[in-house]
Amino acid sequence: MAYIQVEEGIPGIRSLFQFNPETGGPLCDLAQALLRGPSPLSAAERELIAAYVSHRNGCMFCMNSHAMAARCLLGDQQHIVDEILIEQNTSALSAKMKSLLLIAGKVQVNGKSVKAEDIEMARNAGAGDADIHDTVLIAASFSMFNRYVDGLNTLTPSGRWAYEEMGKRMSEKGYQL
Amino acid sequence: MAYIQVEEGIPGIRSLFQFNPETGGPLCDLAQALLRGPSPLSAAERELIAAYVSHRNGCMFCMNSHAMAARCLLGDQQHIVDEILIEQNTSALSAKMKSLLLIAGKVQVNGKSVKAEDIEMARNAGAGDADIHDTVLIAASFSMFNRYVDGLNTLTPSGRWAYEEMGKRMSEKGYQL
Repeated sequence: MAYIQVEEGIPGIRSLFQFNPETGGPLCDLAQALLRGPSPLSAAERELIAAYVSHRNGCMFCMNSHAMAARCLLGDQQHIVDEILIEQNTSALSAKMKSLLLIAGKVQVNGKSVKAEDIEMARNAGAGDADIHDTVLIAASFSMFNRYVDGLNTLTPSGRWAYEEMGKRMSEKGYQL
Repeated sequence: MAYIQVEEGIPGIRSLFQFNPETGGPLCDLAQALLRGPSPLSAAERELIAAYVSHRNGCMFCMNSHAMAARCLLGDQQHIVDEILIEQNTSALSAKMKSLLLIAGKVQVNGKSVKAEDIEMARNAGAGDADIHDTVLIAASFSMFNRYVDGLNTLTPSGRWAYEEMGKRMSEKGYQL
């Protein structure tokens, strides 16, 4: 049960958006701008970074929902999601995405872990300023979302299939409240 | 030098808001709602939680600026800021604030570190749902802001006095862009 009184049966962060719409509004706007707004990264690539960071933080709600959104967006390439999250096999990714996931993993640990050589590797693989910015902010923002969801012990449906409808909705409609 | 091309001489997160106003807008709205909007916690208490989490993450820009904002808001009680951040002495705080700082410190580590007994201790000290919610989200959001600022290696003025004007502005005007 959640640590604060939220509406029963509403999972994860949605129960918190309802608890406090004043902060829920900007949080949804942030997710929408970051995961669906203009970016050199595709929506699928951004969902993959979100799921990867959530996986590293052990946040099952965010990991399962964003992994499912990534699967919906990837269509017949959806095997990539499990390869990365379960098998830790990034061979299907471009050199650019590999270097960005490395940066995202460092941000998950601490901002200061990102070194000039990590950035240089990403640039050599074709990443520009916006790729690097968006990767760092997605990883940073899921360091927030994961802590918000788990720090208040919100309802986390178990098993990936509980997230099928949620992931489909996220992939089609994004994050507008 | 920052890892991406931001305007020279603009410190910390302000350079990133300028680099990407699409995400900067929701991030400012979040800070404003969370640190200045309705809450049972005073603005000074919320700035103190922000500075405390930033200190634990080693983010000098966020720590110095929010510590200075807290000093401005605390007036003749401003010695509390150094007592907490430098001396790790929380004796000037209420039992409620002590228990909320403990929760904030756990959120800084990982959302799952917050246990039912931490929440119970806070409730026994007088904390309600909104105190607990706001504390967890402030700690979670500074886990983001700190990573965003340091992960992109933004300009960090050194020495607390470089933050005097910034802290004064934050305490008086808040976080509207």
